[in-house]
Amino acid sequence: MSQTTVLSVAYDGSLFHGFARQEGLATVQGRIEQSLGVILRRPVEIVGAGRTDTGVHARGQVVSFPSGPADPAPGELLRSLNALAGPGIVVSGVRHAHEGFSARHDAVAREYRYLLVPGPVPPLAIGPRAWWVKGALDLTAMREGAAQLLGEHDFRSFCVAESAEGKRTVRGIEALEIHTGCELGEHCIVVRVVGRSFLHSMVRIMVGSLVEVGRGRRRPEWMAEALAARDRAAAGPTAPPQGLTLWHVTYPQDCWL
Amino acid sequence: MSQTTVLSVAYDGSLFHGFARQEGLATVQGRIEQSLGVILRRPVEIVGAGRTDTGVHARGQVVSFPSGPADPAPGELLRSLNALAGPGIVVSGVRHAHEGFSARHDAVAREYRYLLVPGPVPPLAIGPRAWWVKGALDLTAMREGAAQLLGEHDFRSFCVAESAEGKRTVRGIEALEIHTGCELGEHCIVVRVVGRSFLHSMVRIMVGSLVEVGRGRRRPEWMAEALAARDRAAAGPTAPPQGLTLWHVTYPQDCWL
Repeated sequence: MSQTTVLSVAYDGSLFHGFARQEGLATVQGRIEQSLGVILRRPVEIVGAGRTDTGVHARGQVVSFPSGPADPAPGELLRSLNALAGPGIVVSGVRHAHEGFSARHDAVAREYRYLLVPGPVPPLAIGPRAWWVKGALDLTAMREGAAQLLGEHDFRSFCVAESAEGKRTVRGIEALEIHTGCELGEHCIVVRVVGRSFLHSMVRIMVGSLVEVGRGRRRPEWMAEALAARDRAAAGPTAPPQGLTLWHVTYPQDCWL
Repeated sequence: MSQTTVLSVAYDGSLFHGFARQEGLATVQGRIEQSLGVILRRPVEIVGAGRTDTGVHARGQVVSFPSGPADPAPGELLRSLNALAGPGIVVSGVRHAHEGFSARHDAVAREYRYLLVPGPVPPLAIGPRAWWVKGALDLTAMREGAAQLLGEHDFRSFCVAESAEGKRTVRGIEALEIHTGCELGEHCIVVRVVGRSFLHSMVRIMVGSLVEVGRGRRRPEWMAEALAARDRAAAGPTAPPQGLTLWHVTYPQDCWL
């Protein structure tokens, strides 16, 4: 029976030129495909749920490829991949889905989390995974601003301009929450974003804009104005990549074999 | 009025040959003293609450040195130190104590935390701050073993043998707790240890021994036998340094000016 192999993958984005394969550069896709080629003794092309940019981390990236009849069992594949794919990549799970399953097209929700550390002192333990925002952030204002992005909107203002040319830019935001947290003993703010799919740099531009509001440089209602403008120049700056993690991807329960 | 300046310091132990100054090597003490020399324009010798070994991290290390009459205000010293002391060192606070205060001798409690990640898959985000223990750990057995170390005992079996020669090796353990936790989205086990002071490598040998119990290689009662032997060879291996963090040091409230 033909089927698809599906991997859950975590990686340290600081070590890669992004997810997508690029000739001559260290990429997550390139490293996983190379490792799979060695283990399965055939060329393998994987599909990823999210094409994370250079510097963006993943906790729950999902990739898929067609299984072969002689492929090792999941537990063995997991061990072999973790022996070959590192440093900076960990495969945390191996599952099987029906033939034709695509980690990209069958995803029903993607969750990203962005770590912010406000204050006079930079984070240390979580520094490589957070954006240090010197000074204070007004969380009430940020939450008011965030509420205006919820639901379905044209997010043309919130994506890389060239990536949007001639494309549909309507997307739905199912959740956009701002929590206070503590990771490895350091206080932080977690921006949690859930949607079916996202435009290029959309989460980072949303966070960069919310930080403008949190700093008091813009009013919360400015988020709605930025949306309405349908122009990248109307939104805030792009937040740096190291604070962003592709956290989790959801699929329909019935796709697993 | 003469007084003492007290710094709270966090550092990434992987970047230093331990806390204590060593000629020609990158150490935490060396880097802080060098930075203070530049800022205060006089030679400064600091005293640290804990002499962490190579690879051991700190979240709440405390260091002290005699203040000078022309020293900058705490906020200015904080900014200057964070501009000079990095990478890998963050000064999170500057306070003043009475003359003669010593970060080492006036400490009434030290808290260390050790992160363990059991399971078939190595940790990624917290990998540099955890010990990956392949396989499962029996937390009930570990907690039973830990209970036998609580209170005042001769910990000669739980320290570097040469460091104990001719020295008093009785110490008191006020808390030794084993919690399940989740840091940066990764499941882990936190061993939390509190005591007034510790012998050389004592926390790491305690954790290494508890992991022997958790793996089922030793019974929980073996901890008491190891203590009673008063011989380093009777206890378990030394847990690797990267899982250990000097978390917090407590001083009497009345020492702050």
